[in-house]
Amino acid sequence: MELFPPSQPQARRHLISVSDLDRDDVERILATAESFEAVMHRDLKKVPTLRGRTVMTVFFESSTRTSSSFELAAKRLSADVVSLKAVGSSVDKGESLRDTVQTLSAYDPDVIVIRHAAVGAAARVTKATSAHVVNAGDGCHQHPTQCLLDLYTIRAVRGSLDSLHVAIVGDVMHSRVARSNIQGLLMLGARVTLVGPPTLIPRHMTSLGVEVSHDISAIADADVIYVLRMQHERMSEGEAYIPSLREYSALWGVTSERVRPGQLVMHPGPMNRGVEISSDVADGPSSHVIDQVRAGLVVRMAVLYDLLAGPGPADASAALRPVPVAAGVAAGQEVA
Amino acid sequence: MELFPPSQPQARRHLISVSDLDRDDVERILATAESFEAVMHRDLKKVPTLRGRTVMTVFFESSTRTSSSFELAAKRLSADVVSLKAVGSSVDKGESLRDTVQTLSAYDPDVIVIRHAAVGAAARVTKATSAHVVNAGDGCHQHPTQCLLDLYTIRAVRGSLDSLHVAIVGDVMHSRVARSNIQGLLMLGARVTLVGPPTLIPRHMTSLGVEVSHDISAIADADVIYVLRMQHERMSEGEAYIPSLREYSALWGVTSERVRPGQLVMHPGPMNRGVEISSDVADGPSSHVIDQVRAGLVVRMAVLYDLLAGPGPADASAALRPVPVAAGVAAGQEVA
Amino acid sequence: MELFPPSQPQARRHLISVSDLDRDDVERILATAESFEAVMHRDLKKVPTLRGRTVMTVFFESSTRTSSSFELAAKRLSADVVSLKAVGSSVDKGESLRDTVQTLSAYDPDVIVIRHAAVGAAARVTKATSAHVVNAGDGCHQHPTQCLLDLYTIRAVRGSLDSLHVAIVGDVMHSRVARSNIQGLLMLGARVTLVGPPTLIPRHMTSLGVEVSHDISAIADADVIYVLRMQHERMSEGEAYIPSLREYSALWGVTSERVRPGQLVMHPGPMNRGVEISSDVADGPSSHVIDQVRAGLVVRMAVLYDLLAGPGPADASAALRPVPVAAGVAAGQEVA
Repeated sequence: MELFPPSQPQARRHLISVSDLDRDDVERILATAESFEAVMHRDLKKVPTLRGRTVMTVFFESSTRTSSSFELAAKRLSADVVSLKAVGSSVDKGESLRDTVQTLSAYDPDVIVIRHAAVGAAARVTKATSAHVVNAGDGCHQHPTQCLLDLYTIRAVRGSLDSLHVAIVGDVMHSRVARSNIQGLLMLGARVTLVGPPTLIPRHMTSLGVEVSHDISAIADADVIYVLRMQHERMSEGEAYIPSLREYSALWGVTSERVRPGQLVMHPGPMNRGVEISSDVADGPSSHVIDQVRAGLVVRMAVLYDLLAGPGPADASAALRPVPVAAGVAAGQEVA
Repeated sequence: MELFPPSQPQARRHLISVSDLDRDDVERILATAESFEAVMHRDLKKVPTLRGRTVMTVFFESSTRTSSSFELAAKRLSADVVSLKAVGSSVDKGESLRDTVQTLSAYDPDVIVIRHAAVGAAARVTKATSAHVVNAGDGCHQHPTQCLLDLYTIRAVRGSLDSLHVAIVGDVMHSRVARSNIQGLLMLGARVTLVGPPTLIPRHMTSLGVEVSHDISAIADADVIYVLRMQHERMSEGEAYIPSLREYSALWGVTSERVRPGQLVMHPGPMNRGVEISSDVADGPSSHVIDQVRAGLVVRMAVLYDLLAGPGPADASAALRPVPVAAGVAAGQEVA
Repeated sequence: MELFPPSQPQARRHLISVSDLDRDDVERILATAESFEAVMHRDLKKVPTLRGRTVMTVFFESSTRTSSSFELAAKRLSADVVSLKAVGSSVDKGESLRDTVQTLSAYDPDVIVIRHAAVGAAARVTKATSAHVVNAGDGCHQHPTQCLLDLYTIRAVRGSLDSLHVAIVGDVMHSRVARSNIQGLLMLGARVTLVGPPTLIPRHMTSLGVEVSHDISAIADADVIYVLRMQHERMSEGEAYIPSLREYSALWGVTSERVRPGQLVMHPGPMNRGVEISSDVADGPSSHVIDQVRAGLVVRMAVLYDLLAGPGPADASAALRPVPVAAGVAAGQEVA
């Protein structure tokens, strides 16, 4: 009888930050996502690509959209999914992140998707596992699949990001989405302006190659208005970043008076309607919020596929064959 | 590159209320459930009917039996299931029901099963999605699959509901089960008497075609005694519907002294033993509580099947072929 | 139309306590686990053995490692898994354990895996279901799969347990792991010494055939040092089992000064680093904590297989055939 040989920490690829990707990587993942989108138009939306693989999602912060998006992406690829929430887990017993991850990685999952409130959590996880690790958000630091789905959405509407002007509006300070998107947008050739009160835009941001404006009228010039969520939950008590939600909304809210026809309005969700965005804009013709959610599914399918299948050419035709179904049921008619 | 075309809000069928169904619909669903029951007698209880389909269960109220019943029904049909609980979801961040559902429906699930504390929640969801929607309970309003499983259970024991006398006992006021069952029982020809204190039976109920009695002895005449759960959690504080649980139990509890041999006793669960029902009745020969749970599984399989396969003839023979299994494992002998 | 015939309470096998097993049973399960370990070395770690079967995990206490281990074991065997946590379930509405289990067992799962804070809970569940029941921990009583995985781990390293000396250190009083392991270790021929303060080792324990020492230096003589978790959560308030965590750690902590090269250090997890075990030992070359987690997966696969396939010969070759995968994806190369 022999023990498992200890997992060799080999050179596995991870997606921790947008800076892990170069432009070719981004183009390849977006092209793969596009081919999965064709699958989503089918009556049967599932492919057998990752059958027999295990994806673990480990969420130490609550999230409907991101955890369900990853779970469904894995299931649409026929992978097995084991989902862990911090609530009700050993974390309640005071176990460290490292012990939790070592425990989970002892099961040899193929991919660990992790969200955690601490900056650098996903990167630390890579030291403790031989699985591919995907960062689904670490504190105010990074959320790379959000960036990829946003790039996908903008390209789907505008064809290219080259020379496009994107205004990112609101609470940049506490936003991992802003940090990831700035990197991705600049990489694909866009021009970025951060718009918001000085208390919510760190001064050092200009060193990233973006412009900063403290006047909401700056969004008038943008092709894309990317509205950030007010991160109440990430603001420490006693720190007065904004005078009040009402005043914030009056000064910085993206309302129909401030949006021109033809501008794309985006938001990573969940939205605080009436705070950073008005309901008429959120539900109006400029809004691409639902497109972003749809893009999230195919982009996450593409990321899982890319990590497991390796960075080969984007032709994934073998991956797109449908799952076999019961005779007479796929078509629908014979059953009815 | 093209975005998903926006989902066309076509004429999809939903199950929001018993009033969505006519007698033919009910008969067809019960017949389909009966054919699935034969599958449940097999050693392998799974059919490949809905392979490749996605069922999302979204529960904003806690529930063991209903959520697990729907999940298992979907899995027995080989569908993929994505389950969301309100606890630990974006709902904690104040996202609206509409935004949550729009987000989820952007993933193009085939069916959304929803439970929510607000009357009309499931109906509103139909406006925000192109999925089939099943109401798994909306406040005090409707719980149509509970009605169908109760009809199934009574028919299984008594053959027909025609002219059967059903007494519904207890907290009718706060019960979506009562509202759904009254409609279904009358549709199939039963006679219904509501039994309970005046504070728990709204006066307008008589307009539905039921009798009302404020005397517990009225259950003596019934073929079926349907005991409702005391809905503590749906009674607002300060409102005195009943003087005390002890007095309620003495006056209205369904105890062995009040049940005749041959009467069916039913309860939608979870039971408050010693309040609305005594343990000897709950566990006695008249009780069909466990049969109701079993019926719930096959009825929910039938509802999912019916919504996805369309209202065709009830012959579902293609749907009943078993899933293929590993050679030598199905039989059991070769492996042992 | 016929109701389901009531489930016949036949002689189904369960795993409630180590005392349910004789030495042949243990040897057979460990041998089956070993054959599943070979599957875990494959690129695709899934076998179709239990396809179409349903495993229900019902956890009334929180646990990351045990619940995820059982879930993944079932999924690796291709079973369907329905997982219930006490949080968010009807248990919140005051439903009894018995009603919950009767409800769940009405769905005819093949196996129910249950963890509950009450001693004897899993045994009581066997009365209310026709499923095979696996005890995943009942209060301070038993945790038989933990024992089996510990036996597996020790045998993997040392070949045999015969005449091996195992010191179990710490909070024996509140530990179901200690109770299960004492039985299993003695059954396979090991010698057991319990080491800890008199307040944490019940006097009657010596009647089980173990030695007791109240001096931490007793671990120097052991081949295996099995460190128990300090069960803060199972100590009633006001009872002073230990003067303080700091003093406990100084007197009873397993630190590098107290461990000789060649000794195996084990811990059931989650660890309180700096309390019952120091971090340098937990992460050092003597530690087999991660091996235990890995063993847990294959041992639980073996237990599920053994209960469902019956106590036949250990040759499970039919069970080890891999699941079929999409052409060109299993190999990985064609896709890349």
